[in-house]
Amino acid sequence: MFDSSLPAEFALIARHFGPLAGPAALGLGDDAALLVPPPGRELVLTVDAMIAGVHFLPDDPPDLIGRKLLRVNLSDLAAKGATPIGYLMTVAAPRDTPDGWFARFAAGLAQDQQEYAVTLLGGDTTSTPGPIALSLTILGHVAPGTMVRRAGAQPGDGIWVTGTIGDGALGLAVALGKLADPTGHLLQRYRLPQPRVGLAIAGVASAGMDISDGLVQDLGHLCRASNLAAEVDTTALPLSPPAQKAGADWLPTILTGGDDYELLLSVPPDREAALRQAARDAGMPVTRVGSFRAGPPGVMVRGPNGKPLSLARGGWSHF
Amino acid sequence: MFDSSLPAEFALIARHFGPLAGPAALGLGDDAALLVPPPGRELVLTVDAMIAGVHFLPDDPPDLIGRKLLRVNLSDLAAKGATPIGYLMTVAAPRDTPDGWFARFAAGLAQDQQEYAVTLLGGDTTSTPGPIALSLTILGHVAPGTMVRRAGAQPGDGIWVTGTIGDGALGLAVALGKLADPTGHLLQRYRLPQPRVGLAIAGVASAGMDISDGLVQDLGHLCRASNLAAEVDTTALPLSPPAQKAGADWLPTILTGGDDYELLLSVPPDREAALRQAARDAGMPVTRVGSFRAGPPGVMVRGPNGKPLSLARGGWSHF
Repeated sequence: MFDSSLPAEFALIARHFGPLAGPAALGLGDDAALLVPPPGRELVLTVDAMIAGVHFLPDDPPDLIGRKLLRVNLSDLAAKGATPIGYLMTVAAPRDTPDGWFARFAAGLAQDQQEYAVTLLGGDTTSTPGPIALSLTILGHVAPGTMVRRAGAQPGDGIWVTGTIGDGALGLAVALGKLADPTGHLLQRYRLPQPRVGLAIAGVASAGMDISDGLVQDLGHLCRASNLAAEVDTTALPLSPPAQKAGADWLPTILTGGDDYELLLSVPPDREAALRQAARDAGMPVTRVGSFRAGPPGVMVRGPNGKPLSLARGGWSHF
Repeated sequence: MFDSSLPAEFALIARHFGPLAGPAALGLGDDAALLVPPPGRELVLTVDAMIAGVHFLPDDPPDLIGRKLLRVNLSDLAAKGATPIGYLMTVAAPRDTPDGWFARFAAGLAQDQQEYAVTLLGGDTTSTPGPIALSLTILGHVAPGTMVRRAGAQPGDGIWVTGTIGDGALGLAVALGKLADPTGHLLQRYRLPQPRVGLAIAGVASAGMDISDGLVQDLGHLCRASNLAAEVDTTALPLSPPAQKAGADWLPTILTGGDDYELLLSVPPDREAALRQAARDAGMPVTRVGSFRAGPPGVMVRGPNGKPLSLARGGWSHF
């Protein structure tokens, strides 16, 4: 692993990625990683690709690119109630990519490995005539039968979210110069996801996923998977102070914008206390923003006046 | 998974990749795969990237690209003595990639999934402004403590290879118009690796890897990992009839060219019978081509006259 189709300069890669490797990686010196799965647990696996010019800009800080790549995958594990183990990664980069780019990319990964207690299991590096192309496969584990799925919500279950909603999308507006951000909070939320690793939702949430494509669109996924309708009360939405300050004009962005990486959970009424306890234990706020009911899959959002909102994108529909 | 940053046309992806998904993939409709690891087994994981213009040509047959992507990873598992389970994959493709490309790519994967008893566990698709970029992470399993590593060869162990050596590199010469190939055997060997899945080397080989970068270079890796010297007898090399026919001028290519995807194994003398039995059980030829001895890591190749060969590339050296 981390054999390379590139010549000498890519020996540097081993230098940068070697320190990230955990015991299972065998020093990145073998052809495969060797992992003893946690006894009596099931494995949760997910993978995401990130391409320069699509998911990040070529001149974005390399450490943030590395951290975002790891964090979007950690967020998926968190939404499934899984405890992270480690990851494998491929890095395709142009031949003229400076050594410093790899050093800073690896430094970002190293920082988040420590924060989230994961290690690099293995990888592959190669040259590409195109933009930097990254792919990261992450492994986690859950107790048997407890992985939180998209399907499983029941009529009457509450719709819960962690943290605050909309900061990621407003942060993009800030990056595009469309919104002021005196505290820098919104831009920071957009640039670096905060995966909700450590919130013990297994056995608590009846369904769940992370919010990466916007609350309404992702709630629509839960509705379709569980064959239920959902109703969201905008007055219940947890908003950060800068999001509150942005004002009512930004409500559609808050509801339909992406990059929140908060968790979206279905929780039966009799497990709300368990969720609140789990949230206290993890030091993460949770808020009930609506409920599921029987009906054709779709999301209805009630505005401040109690009437359904019409959203141009990702809004009320029966799919 | 297989959420996409691309619009409508990529709903087609789910259509192409959906049929590849096994039970653990949850129909590709969740955010993660859920895998029950085989009880009492250890997991072996490896990942490889393939980029158009680097690892394959943009107009190569898409089914062969898919099959090669899967097979190079299966070959790594085979070299570790691991039984394949399944794989996760990312596909980054230009927006104008025709639907038929994906159909044929997936058809190639489907064919090999059946041949090698693996299923798709999950994936991610995305657009890219660059060439097609593929990444595949594969999982396998072994009995505890039996993964065949690069390190572990002992002085006196025999050096064994499966199948025939050099056909891949000669096939490349055929593709470049430098060599005739009346039977098409060499070109086929170059185009489509035949991973040695099913050869039961766990507990038999003291060290091993697959030959992807040429016999001499990869044997050098084993030497370094095991801190031993190796001696290869060219008169013992198993050559296909077309490789024999190519003649002595092609011996350096046979020794140092890549793309064989045969296994390179270290086997203690008292386990040779076990290896031969495993080879019979799997219907795969194995041949002893040399031995390890104490000494500075390096590969000596004896030519037909018994004298050490001097190879321009990947030859005798102490690294």
